[in-house]
Amino acid sequence: MTPTDPPRPTGARPPRVLVLDDSPRPDLTALSGRAEVAYADASSLAARLPTADALLVWDFTSDAVRHSWPGGGGRPGWVHTASAGVDRLLPELAASDVVITNARGVFDQPIAEYVSGLVLAMAKDFHRTWEFQREHAWRHRETKRVAGTRAAVIGSGPIGRAIGRTLMALGVAVELVGRRERTGDPEFGTVRAADDLDSLLPSADWVVCAAPLTPATEGLFDAAAFGRMKPGAHFVNIGRGRHVVTADLVAALESGRLGGAALDVLEEEPLPGDSPLWRVPGLLISPHMSGDTIGWRDDLARQFVENFDRWVAGEPLLNVVDKHLGYVTDTPSPATPTPAGGPQ
Amino acid sequence: MTPTDPPRPTGARPPRVLVLDDSPRPDLTALSGRAEVAYADASSLAARLPTADALLVWDFTSDAVRHSWPGGGGRPGWVHTASAGVDRLLPELAASDVVITNARGVFDQPIAEYVSGLVLAMAKDFHRTWEFQREHAWRHRETKRVAGTRAAVIGSGPIGRAIGRTLMALGVAVELVGRRERTGDPEFGTVRAADDLDSLLPSADWVVCAAPLTPATEGLFDAAAFGRMKPGAHFVNIGRGRHVVTADLVAALESGRLGGAALDVLEEEPLPGDSPLWRVPGLLISPHMSGDTIGWRDDLARQFVENFDRWVAGEPLLNVVDKHLGYVTDTPSPATPTPAGGPQ
Repeated sequence: MTPTDPPRPTGARPPRVLVLDDSPRPDLTALSGRAEVAYADASSLAARLPTADALLVWDFTSDAVRHSWPGGGGRPGWVHTASAGVDRLLPELAASDVVITNARGVFDQPIAEYVSGLVLAMAKDFHRTWEFQREHAWRHRETKRVAGTRAAVIGSGPIGRAIGRTLMALGVAVELVGRRERTGDPEFGTVRAADDLDSLLPSADWVVCAAPLTPATEGLFDAAAFGRMKPGAHFVNIGRGRHVVTADLVAALESGRLGGAALDVLEEEPLPGDSPLWRVPGLLISPHMSGDTIGWRDDLARQFVENFDRWVAGEPLLNVVDKHLGYVTDTPSPATPTPAGGPQ
Repeated sequence: MTPTDPPRPTGARPPRVLVLDDSPRPDLTALSGRAEVAYADASSLAARLPTADALLVWDFTSDAVRHSWPGGGGRPGWVHTASAGVDRLLPELAASDVVITNARGVFDQPIAEYVSGLVLAMAKDFHRTWEFQREHAWRHRETKRVAGTRAAVIGSGPIGRAIGRTLMALGVAVELVGRRERTGDPEFGTVRAADDLDSLLPSADWVVCAAPLTPATEGLFDAAAFGRMKPGAHFVNIGRGRHVVTADLVAALESGRLGGAALDVLEEEPLPGDSPLWRVPGLLISPHMSGDTIGWRDDLARQFVENFDRWVAGEPLLNVVDKHLGYVTDTPSPATPTPAGGPQ
């Protein structure tokens, strides 16, 4: 489904912007006098949605929008989520004519740094070195070179590209994997098709998942995929927890098939304290923070305000999500939301 | 002192190569039939040195060479150390006419990767994340961007240059600091003089010591230096332990002046199990392994054999150390050792 033009604000009163968050946190002072900003939490969202012109999903960890989305009648014409992934909005919102925009761009370089740090940390075995430090043990080991190794980065959007670019700067040969094969990419040459993943896994030292979560990518990393990976390869997931069949990853680590793995995203977040995952040997867990560098919330708020300005001016919104694919494509159809001065 | 020509092998018998190590470990099979290879440990070194034409310091953690070096008479004309630093050979060997060569080149890229990994790990706070993992605690935090930060890399030899290059590839602005100022460097623009270090420290987010240990650099990082650093800056030492006044570093960490530090080298190695350093908050300790990637010993042996071949052929040796400065300069005087077919 290609994006359509959402209603743009044309009425006499300022447009109503509803923000999904437990407490008013984003700095939207730039909207003062130009928008009527209200907040809702998961419990009040359904009641407030019908009178909103636009919805800012600030608490992007919530499934409330999908579950509260009105089946018809009054509802916002534009939903912006302060996240790269839109999986928590789908499929319900895809069935309506709402325009969805996302935080494309904010997380690219931070996540690329995080992933490169994980790759280097795993190559240099920092985790065990610091375990030995706790034991006051001086244990010299030989570690891996990163330059000259090979990575497969699954996800050819801006996050995957930034990861690939940063790994290449460290001397890693990178295969970028998208939905379809594309030749002539100025940075990556041929972007490989997801259908070719099976042929790429056996030669990759590092397999990085940076894909959007869609029906096509859910459970992509299962026993079959781990079984195809090079013995001793390392796996990194900064996409979504449900890209991975976690039990299969654990089995691949426990069997020694994989050299290690790092998960910044998990099927259940926050991971409960009694989860056995915390203690799987060779598994590094971080709390969904790979893209969240100091100032990220300011960047997210600025990004929304920029799109708000475009909306009010009748200009095409940035970062319009293809609701069928579940992410922003490189050649989006510009969508110009035109919220009327009242409930839609 | 500029290098002089050491004696090259000209006699009828193969030259005698003495290897300092507790057990015969380097793969020198390439020398079969072309050299008479013998091994010595610290206790037998003094007795064997007078009859050796060349000495390979394979155990570069030993001070035995300096302490066993003959005051005169028979001794090797060429000493090769399988390390980048030659501080364990000086000053005793500098007073003789021996030619010293080192392992320049082998460690550059591995150490650059290690340091970049440490910088990213400190920026992304991996250490605390993995502590939280041990506690089964999901603790989201905001972390630092690396791109856009500033680093001062002290040491403008190939290791410092490789570190600077790799950090620049990650978007870090790098000031490289050498003994003297040099302008027009193709990669770093102006290489700053050590005398200017005081003016560089206040603006550096990352201060990396990659200098050779010489009288000029010993104790360079003391209370005064840490006091000049930017509050919250991070310090990394992959040079030698004695570059740092360790007590001053500990004080700078405990006062909160520094954001963190990583030491791969220490004043005492191995660090004793009862050292309080193991438990200093914000201090990451690794056991002098930053350059030791898989295959490093093979690389070191190949490098010695290559120089041996040059020695026998009467060609200038590679990586001749300026014994006065304590490292290989960029414009070395070629030294052609000519060991006679017998004790020198």
